Formats: sequence, structure tokens, C-alpha cells
Amino acid sequence: MNYDYLLYLAIILMSTKLLGLVTRKAHMPQVVGALIAGLILGPACLNLLHSSTFLNQVSEIGVIVLMFMAGLETDTEELKRSGLASFVIALLGVLVPLAGGFLVAMACHVASPELSASELMQNIFIGIILTATSVSITVETLKEMGKVSTKAGTAILGAAIIDDILGIIALTVITSMADPSTNLVLVLLKIVGFFAFAVVFGIGFFYIIQKWVALDPKPNRRHVIMTFAFCLIMSFCAEHFFGVADITGAYVAGLVLSHSSKREVIYREFDTVSYLLVAPVFFASIGLKVELSSMSASLAAFTLLLLAVAIVTKILGCGLGAKIMGYTPKESFQIGIGMISRGEVALIVANKGEALGLIDDKLYAPIVVTVVITTVITPILLKAAFKDKKRTAAA
Amino acid sequence: MNYDYLLYLAIILMSTKLLGLVTRKAHMPQVVGALIAGLILGPACLNLLHSSTFLNQVSEIGVIVLMFMAGLETDTEELKRSGLASFVIALLGVLVPLAGGFLVAMACHVASPELSASELMQNIFIGIILTATSVSITVETLKEMGKVSTKAGTAILGAAIIDDILGIIALTVITSMADPSTNLVLVLLKIVGFFAFAVVFGIGFFYIIQKWVALDPKPNRRHVIMTFAFCLIMSFCAEHFFGVADITGAYVAGLVLSHSSKREVIYREFDTVSYLLVAPVFFASIGLKVELSSMSASLAAFTLLLLAVAIVTKILGCGLGAKIMGYTPKESFQIGIGMISRGEVALIVANKGEALGLIDDKLYAPIVVTVVITTVITPILLKAAFKDKKRTAAA
Repeated sequence: MNYDYLLYLAIILMSTKLLGLVTRKAHMPQVVGALIAGLILGPACLNLLHSSTFLNQVSEIGVIVLMFMAGLETDTEELKRSGLASFVIALLGVLVPLAGGFLVAMACHVASPELSASELMQNIFIGIILTATSVSITVETLKEMGKVSTKAGTAILGAAIIDDILGIIALTVITSMADPSTNLVLVLLKIVGFFAFAVVFGIGFFYIIQKWVALDPKPNRRHVIMTFAFCLIMSFCAEHFFGVADITGAYVAGLVLSHSSKREVIYREFDTVSYLLVAPVFFASIGLKVELSSMSASLAAFTLLLLAVAIVTKILGCGLGAKIMGYTPKESFQIGIGMISRGEVALIVANKGEALGLIDDKLYAPIVVTVVITTVITPILLKAAFKDKKRTAAA
Repeated sequence: MNYDYLLYLAIILMSTKLLGLVTRKAHMPQVVGALIAGLILGPACLNLLHSSTFLNQVSEIGVIVLMFMAGLETDTEELKRSGLASFVIALLGVLVPLAGGFLVAMACHVASPELSASELMQNIFIGIILTATSVSITVETLKEMGKVSTKAGTAILGAAIIDDILGIIALTVITSMADPSTNLVLVLLKIVGFFAFAVVFGIGFFYIIQKWVALDPKPNRRHVIMTFAFCLIMSFCAEHFFGVADITGAYVAGLVLSHSSKREVIYREFDTVSYLLVAPVFFASIGLKVELSSMSASLAAFTLLLLAVAIVTKILGCGLGAKIMGYTPKESFQIGIGMISRGEVALIVANKGEALGLIDDKLYAPIVVTVVITTVITPILLKAAFKDKKRTAAA
């Protein structure tokens, strides 16, 4: 047996925390330091750690726990009120980056004649990669600032869920064009099916756990353990049976339990597991995936352009959606900022595209860099956007 | 990416807890239910789950966290007082099972003429497998009963550490006879080296963390994270540089921090990570390793005999050692019971023996069954042994 993973885990825990403290001293969220820790340790810099199955799986549990906690914290009344607004924000937040990514790919002629798909399809695919918002870093930053249940925070969470679904639909449309075995109608039915399942299973579980808690209302480990199992099952079913992201399942599980009388206890226990083990691994593992050795000058230029478009199109698209739906300019800007971050979803989409012959190997580095940098700057910009507001409110 | 591990984790969390509640209702420790959960889910019964790299690594973190917490709870003054006693208990607790295992193997003619090692060596090796006590289940049971810092509890913990070292020496002696590349003197020097390293690194870390805590004495996540990193580094170094079990490293890390002013906070936070994620995986994964399909009738008879000898020789050996060192008959019996459990160490030793041509493949099932059943009955017997004492004290 190889025990290296114990050392890796120790290095991740120490470096994410120490760099987190450094970034906090510099008035940035701690999560920025944690992401930078991964970049420094990984192949992009010191080449000390590499992503492994173990780190990937612990990291996945990390993001599931974070999304579950975000669900627990969500004010569902506010979410219902902001439902239509979230939809409009998400829709524009998908369409504008899709168009932007497509145009950049066209302008830079990145399509490879060696691939099976047409040039047009390859360029559209770059656009699709830019659509997927990864809200987990935003959630962590909002949590750090205590802003999850603000109006803008709730709109971001709602929009991120819908964004995830729109992203799946977009991916499905293009892959169904590249791969005749995918059935678009079936995919849409499965998404509807997931929400039906979540409602039935969620209400059933909620009813059972509340009855159980009523038998012995003092804080009991068994209830927390069962909620964790429920969260994992929702995550698994979302991916396995419905083709929906596991983190969406985890978020919905959190939403269900946000109405529980045990909400605070559950939150506190998950918070410990999160900060002490799974969340640092998640943050570090994003940076660990970056490899820069394959970068040429023209590719570096494309990377910068892609990054700029990724940032600007989300702020514009989501911000415009929010403005249309009656949010203040300040809130619209906060919402746009909160949606910039791309994460594991973009990487999964890129992986899938590579497997289907829709993008070239060499485009993987620009995509990873875009994911990491949008993820690193989101908390910085978000903190600035919310701080400004506070100052205005005080004035 | 395959998401099955999320489902497996959910199944493990639910089944270990539910069966734990059942065994508690039946006046047995919850850990028995958790072990049985693994047996039922694994290839021995339902064949629903299998041990995987992910489960093994999370399980290893689980046992490390358990041993670290045992160290945190240990009364080091009592440990110092019981040092010589622990040594005598451990020594007899190694010699008696070694002789017993050897005699059973001789009597049953289990040695295989196809293996490179002589019949004598193969029989001695069965004895060596029986020497290794795995104290983690005992620790969990003592914790559940609140008996870790009793006189018997401290003697068990001390003896288990020394037992681990004696087991390593015995393994090294036999492997050095089977494999000329092993150097016995070097192995002994490394064990001494580990304790020297632990003292220097431990005191250094303790000094730094106490200084850091003094800067900001309120409960702070950073301190807990750093102690976890320290625990993992000690575990890694023990295995990697000194050939000592990782759980010994974790226990020593806990001992160091048992003197910290933050002891309670650290304990509470690790307890949450333990019960909510890593400990259930550890308990379940023991049962998951059992496969019974390869059992013949004569092998089943050998299994029963080996099991009986494993139990009786530890009670006799350790109990006699404790009696010699002046413990009461009751305490001696408790100590003997507490040392019955064989665990991952016996499995590691068996693995090593297989690789070196010292035991036959077919003996793996009897060994695993012995490990699992000694592990399952230890908490049951232990609870009985301690309960009896309480009744006497009350009378």
C-alpha cells in the first residue's frame, strides 16, 4: 500500500489554509488563497502534487457538501419570488457567452481540420464551454461574507441551477448533432423527471426524518448521518438516472432540509467536515488540473481573448437579465459578477467534446486556464461588488 | 466519471448507523453493528459493495482519525506509570499467540509443499499473523463506554503500541529469513529512529502551535486544520521512513496534542469528521474484505481452530502479563479481552507473507475470518467485562 496520499492531504490542508490567511490579510476571500495553493503545488508551478482518483473523489464530495450547505442556507420563499427572474438571468447568461465564445473561436481560427466535426460545430462548441457557470466558489465567497440569503445571492443560486440545466440542454443539442445516439427529447424528459423525482423523494424523506426527530428531539448523530446519506443519494441519482449534475442534486437536497427543525445542527456538523477535510481538497484540486507546458504564443493570445470574453459576456448577459427583471444596477452587477466563475462543469463539457471529436487536444490548456482564472477572480470581484454596496448603504 | 462511490458511501453511512442502533438496542456496542453492516453488504453475503481504492483510503483516514483521538484522550501520566506493565503485557501477548498459531498450523498440516519456504517457516508465519493486535475497535468501544482513561484502558493502549512494534520485529525476523534483502538491525534502528523523530518533531510542533494559539486564543479553524496536517504527516512519516504503522504515528500525534490547551476543541471537531464520514467507512470496509466462497470443509475446521486459538492466546498471554505486573484479576481479564481484536495489521502481514511465498492463497480466507470475528466479538466481550466490574464496584 502506498501512503503518499496522507502526505498530499497534509500539504493541501496546510497550504490552502496558509495561503487563505495571506489572501485574507490582503482583503481577498480565503478561497482565492486556497485556489492559488493548488496552482502553486500542481504541474503549472512546483509540480509537487497531481490530481488523482482519490483527490478527485474527495473533491467531488467537497463540492457536494458545499452545495448541500448552500441549499440549507437558501431562503426558499425568496427563491420562489425570484424564480422567473432567475430564469431570465440564466437564459441571457447562457446565450451571450455562447455567442461570444463562438465569435472568438471563429476569429482565431482554432477549429482543426483533422477533427471529424465541421468548423462551424467546433466553434459553436467553444461557445458552449463558456456557458456553464460553476456557482460553488461564489457560494463559498457569499458564505464567507454572510451574503447567501441576500436578494442578489438568492438570484445567483436560482440562476445557477437553471444555468446548469440550460447548459446540459445546449451540450445535448450539439452532441446529438455530433453523435446520432443522443436523443434530445429523452434528455429533456429526464431533466423534468429529475425534478419530479426530487419532489417526491425529497418530501418523503423530509416527512420521515421529521417524524424520527420528533421521537427524540435533542441533537442526535443519527439524524445528521441520514441527511448526509440523503444528500449523497440525491447527488448520485441526479447524475446516474437523469443526466443532471450531482451538485444540482446536492443543492436540492439542501433546499429540502432548509425547512427542517434541525437545520442549524445539520449545518454546523457539515461545516466541520467541509472546512477540515473535503473543501480544501476541492479548492486545491481545481488548481492541480492546470498544465501550461503545451502553450504556444498564438495559443496564449487565444487564451487571453477567451478569458476576457468569458468574463465580459457573463457580466453583460446576466447583468442585463437582472436589469430587465427589475434588479437595481448594483444588484445586477453583483449577479453578473457572481456568475463569472466556470468550474468543473466546463471541464466536464470540454472532456466530453474531446471524446466526441468536437475540440482539439491543444485547446484544453486555454479552457483550463479560463476556468481557473474566472474562478480565482470571481471571489475578488464579488467581494469588491458587495463591499461597495455596503458602503453605499452606510452613506 | 463514475459516480457509484457516492451511492456506496450513502449505503455505508445508512447501514452502519441503522445496524449500530440495532446492536445498541441489544446492549452491544454500536461498532459491532457497523462491522456486521460491512459483512452483510460485502462479498460474504449480499455482494453489493466491494472494497475499492477510494474506500480503502478513506477508511485509512478513518482509522488514523480514531487513533489520533485515542491519543488526545490518553492520560500520559498514567501511560508513563504503566510503561513497564504495558511492555510485559505486550511481550506475553505476542509470544503466547505466536506459539499457539504455530502449533495449530503444525497440527493441521496447512503448510504447502509448493511454496519456497520450509514447512517450519510457513507454520511460524501463521503464528506471526496472530500476534498483531489491532486496537482501533477496542479504542472505539472504550470511547463509547467512556473508559479510555481507566487503568485498564491506558494499559491496553500502551501495550498495543508496544505490540505493534514487537509485531514488526517478528515480521522482520521471519521475512529477513525468507528474503535476504531485509536487514534486521536496520529495522530495529528505524523503530528507535521513529520515536526519536516523534519526540523532536512533536515537541517542535507543540511549541509552534501553542505560540500560535496564544496570539488568538479563541477557537480558530486554522489551529484544528494544522493539527490534522500534523497528524497526517506523523502517520505518513511512520510508514514511509521508519516502517512503523501509520496508526502508531497518529496515536503519538494525539499524545503530543493531549497536552494542548485546545485539546477539547480539537477533539470535538475530529469527532464530527469521524462519525459523519471516515469512521463508518473504516468499520464497513473490514467486513467488505471477507470472501467465503473458497472455503472447503477442512479449511473451515482450521478456521474455527485458528479463531479459538487467536482469542484464547491473547486473553491468556496479555492477562498473564497484566497479572504479573500487579493488575487485579478483573483488570487483567479486561486487558486480555481488549487485545483480542486483530485488524488491518494482520491483513497487511498476511499480504506480505503471500508476496514472499510464506503462506498459501487458500489460507487468506481463514485469516480474514479470524480478523473479522475477533474484531466483532472484542467490543461485545469488552462491554461485558467492563459492565461486570461496574456491578462489583456498586455492590
